Amino acid sequence: MTRTHLPFGDKRDSAFYGTDIVSVSQFDKDDLDYIFEVAHEMRNMVARIGAFDLLKGKLLANLFYEPSTRTSSSFTAAMERLGGGVISINEVRYSSVSKGESLPDTVRTLERYADVIVLRHPDVGATALAARYTTKPIINAGDGVGEHPTQALLDLFTIREELGDVDGLTVTMVGDLKYGRTVHSLAKLLSGFDVNLQFVSPDILPMPDDILAGLDESGAPYEQLNSLDSVIAGTDVLYVTRVQRERFDDEADYDRVKNEFVIDTDTLTAAKQRMIVMHPLPRVNEITMEVDDDPRAAYFRQMEYGMYVRMALLAMVLGKA
Amino acid sequence: MTRTHLPFGDKRDSAFYGTDIVSVSQFDKDDLDYIFEVAHEMRNMVARIGAFDLLKGKLLANLFYEPSTRTSSSFTAAMERLGGGVISINEVRYSSVSKGESLPDTVRTLERYADVIVLRHPDVGATALAARYTTKPIINAGDGVGEHPTQALLDLFTIREELGDVDGLTVTMVGDLKYGRTVHSLAKLLSGFDVNLQFVSPDILPMPDDILAGLDESGAPYEQLNSLDSVIAGTDVLYVTRVQRERFDDEADYDRVKNEFVIDTDTLTAAKQRMIVMHPLPRVNEITMEVDDDPRAAYFRQMEYGMYVRMALLAMVLGKA
Amino acid sequence: MTRTHLPFGDKRDSAFYGTDIVSVSQFDKDDLDYIFEVAHEMRNMVARIGAFDLLKGKLLANLFYEPSTRTSSSFTAAMERLGGGVISINEVRYSSVSKGESLPDTVRTLERYADVIVLRHPDVGATALAARYTTKPIINAGDGVGEHPTQALLDLFTIREELGDVDGLTVTMVGDLKYGRTVHSLAKLLSGFDVNLQFVSPDILPMPDDILAGLDESGAPYEQLNSLDSVIAGTDVLYVTRVQRERFDDEADYDRVKNEFVIDTDTLTAAKQRMIVMHPLPRVNEITMEVDDDPRAAYFRQMEYGMYVRMALLAMVLGKA
Repeated sequence: MTRTHLPFGDKRDSAFYGTDIVSVSQFDKDDLDYIFEVAHEMRNMVARIGAFDLLKGKLLANLFYEPSTRTSSSFTAAMERLGGGVISINEVRYSSVSKGESLPDTVRTLERYADVIVLRHPDVGATALAARYTTKPIINAGDGVGEHPTQALLDLFTIREELGDVDGLTVTMVGDLKYGRTVHSLAKLLSGFDVNLQFVSPDILPMPDDILAGLDESGAPYEQLNSLDSVIAGTDVLYVTRVQRERFDDEADYDRVKNEFVIDTDTLTAAKQRMIVMHPLPRVNEITMEVDDDPRAAYFRQMEYGMYVRMALLAMVLGKA
Repeated sequence: MTRTHLPFGDKRDSAFYGTDIVSVSQFDKDDLDYIFEVAHEMRNMVARIGAFDLLKGKLLANLFYEPSTRTSSSFTAAMERLGGGVISINEVRYSSVSKGESLPDTVRTLERYADVIVLRHPDVGATALAARYTTKPIINAGDGVGEHPTQALLDLFTIREELGDVDGLTVTMVGDLKYGRTVHSLAKLLSGFDVNLQFVSPDILPMPDDILAGLDESGAPYEQLNSLDSVIAGTDVLYVTRVQRERFDDEADYDRVKNEFVIDTDTLTAAKQRMIVMHPLPRVNEITMEVDDDPRAAYFRQMEYGMYVRMALLAMVLGKA
Repeated sequence: MTRTHLPFGDKRDSAFYGTDIVSVSQFDKDDLDYIFEVAHEMRNMVARIGAFDLLKGKLLANLFYEPSTRTSSSFTAAMERLGGGVISINEVRYSSVSKGESLPDTVRTLERYADVIVLRHPDVGATALAARYTTKPIINAGDGVGEHPTQALLDLFTIREELGDVDGLTVTMVGDLKYGRTVHSLAKLLSGFDVNLQFVSPDILPMPDDILAGLDESGAPYEQLNSLDSVIAGTDVLYVTRVQRERFDDEADYDRVKNEFVIDTDTLTAAKQRMIVMHPLPRVNEITMEVDDDPRAAYFRQMEYGMYVRMALLAMVLGKA
């Protein structure tokens, strides 16, 4: 396979070279446009030739302190499709790395072997901490209830690839909006666009006040509802998260609301023909399997967009986009 | 390393492209000949140049719901020697994949990252189920007490490579024939050839009736015995499986038969000079270590033939054989 | 990336081709010079181009019976930077490999898939045992309280790269010298050079008699001390190991000595400007984190030298150095 020549050569190349990817808040709208432009180009390249040697000779250390097969596999696929190699460290709890060694020491060892580190860690702020101690770029693959920026970026990229433009859309988030890290990050990212947000949740699982305060500040319009009925017809993006029984003290409360928040083919009867259903996965029963056959079900395509976003980020922080 | 040009260009190429490998029963004799022809070519290529770039740019997702280092490593080696990459998912029981996510959802995610999926699962029919939900090819690496088609294919390929022709051979299977998945599949595959089968087992561990019925139907001649003594001299292939103590209710029964089914150098004194001893491994004590030095001991070579068969299957289902 | 032409073509190439790396005692001083010359060349190549295709088409089986993320990752990085592939077998205790299969059988299977095997095993002598049964080269990555030759080699290589010449140096080893495998191996290796050794430990954790006897035999001068105070000023290499509380029967004994053996910025005030602090890592609290910013702190660079030594050994045993 010959070395590819991506059509990127503008001044942004150096802006991301060596950058740590810690939080979605580090990107302005121009940054997002650039990331998605590169990710779109990755999509085209994979469609045409499957893989290419842009990162040949580069090594990724995939350091996962807690398991996340989906995210780990996505980064591995991204690096492999760019011709790079991967050191997988998935079993940290059994390894000598975990035997009392501090995170700063672990990443300072791994940066001696690898060119870029992807870090998943149960503690909020772990990536920012690790980034202070290393000179090689670090990408946050989730730090506890903190951030998971590549998830938020892939969610936004999915909307852009599927529907063309983010501005002007109605985005409805449904399910547990209180504990869902992905909907928090996506709402923050979307507040920079001209979108209409609908938050549909059981009373006890609303979007948290600090997220709402941020939206108020940015002037993004939103509504809070207990039912999809009034908004499904106008929805362009239906972002579904799971309502977990264990969040309810009273089982009767759960039984009363659970069907309200299960998406089935009936739900979609009322929806537009051109809209998409998203879900961060894993899905349990909040979207029925019949919906999978509907072309509007975008959640498996969403996984693929995630690979392209991660390819883009890896190439960018290594100065090769 | 230059791109190789394998001497395969006939119409069969497209026949296997995109095909799921679920069961040995999906192959007719012409299919087997073709698979073994490709596998033999793989053997030649590895002997000459070690590895080559036939599957460069392709990704294998190696999805193991139960551990099998031997099979997993064999597929990894096969893919790497063809220049492809591997996403290893070996720790399913700890991973988010296993947290309630259905097999169809897991494989529909992985096919977004990878070009081919190898699946090992404890449930019978898991590969067939997964194959219904994916568009990328899936290869069964063992589904519980169901099938393990690449094991059966490598067993037959071993016989072909070591002895030249399968027709006309006497194949003796010895040990636990009741619970041994490998001897069941091999017996089925051999029933399509002109072979003479000898089944040697303790009384309580005979070849199951459904396998015997299949042989009756295909007209393959077989005999059931309790001792190797009368058949070892005429045997071309001695296929050994383990007799496990825990299969016996009465320890005295076990003690009585156990030595009957241990292969040692004495056993081979009565055998032909040109015959082979096979075993699916791991071996515990049913073949003594002294036998390892006998050139007729083919069980470690058998592992290598397995890699060539898996190289052939990967290349074929990806349309590159 | 173009194929590299390393400037090595002398008769030593064949001397290491196919060799098992079992113990440091198998190398004479000329061997060490050669290994370090190749490792230095690897360092230059990585600095210039990151990775290259010297071992393209070769496969390493990384067989770890006990976890050691640091060593495992180092070998993976070494193989990947040379363009080779890796089969990682890190979960032996859960795998079929461990279900009663003997080490000789496991390595005889893996050598059918791979070109070289790296083995980490809890039992002394495991690598030597495995090597007797295989034809492909095996590299010892630690066998219990036995040897860990690549650690000893990387320690010596670190000294050479950082300080230029080993002869004439004062090497001070401090901490638990009784149970520390690394200091034993390094002391043995250094006995072949013209060095001055200082052993600083609590009374109950001295360098063992057999190591001291070996030094006496080789004529290497050494001193045994309980404090760094008198030797820190003259030290060129300060090799630190951890003093573990659990080695002491009486906690008061531990409390009395523990601060004596913690290296902090005060300790280094008395040291030369051109000296280095080494540690095999993981470090717990025996070197304070303030020391990390001192250019004399070499322990993270030491990790990187380890990768170059392993690159050299892999290339050499595969006949490609």
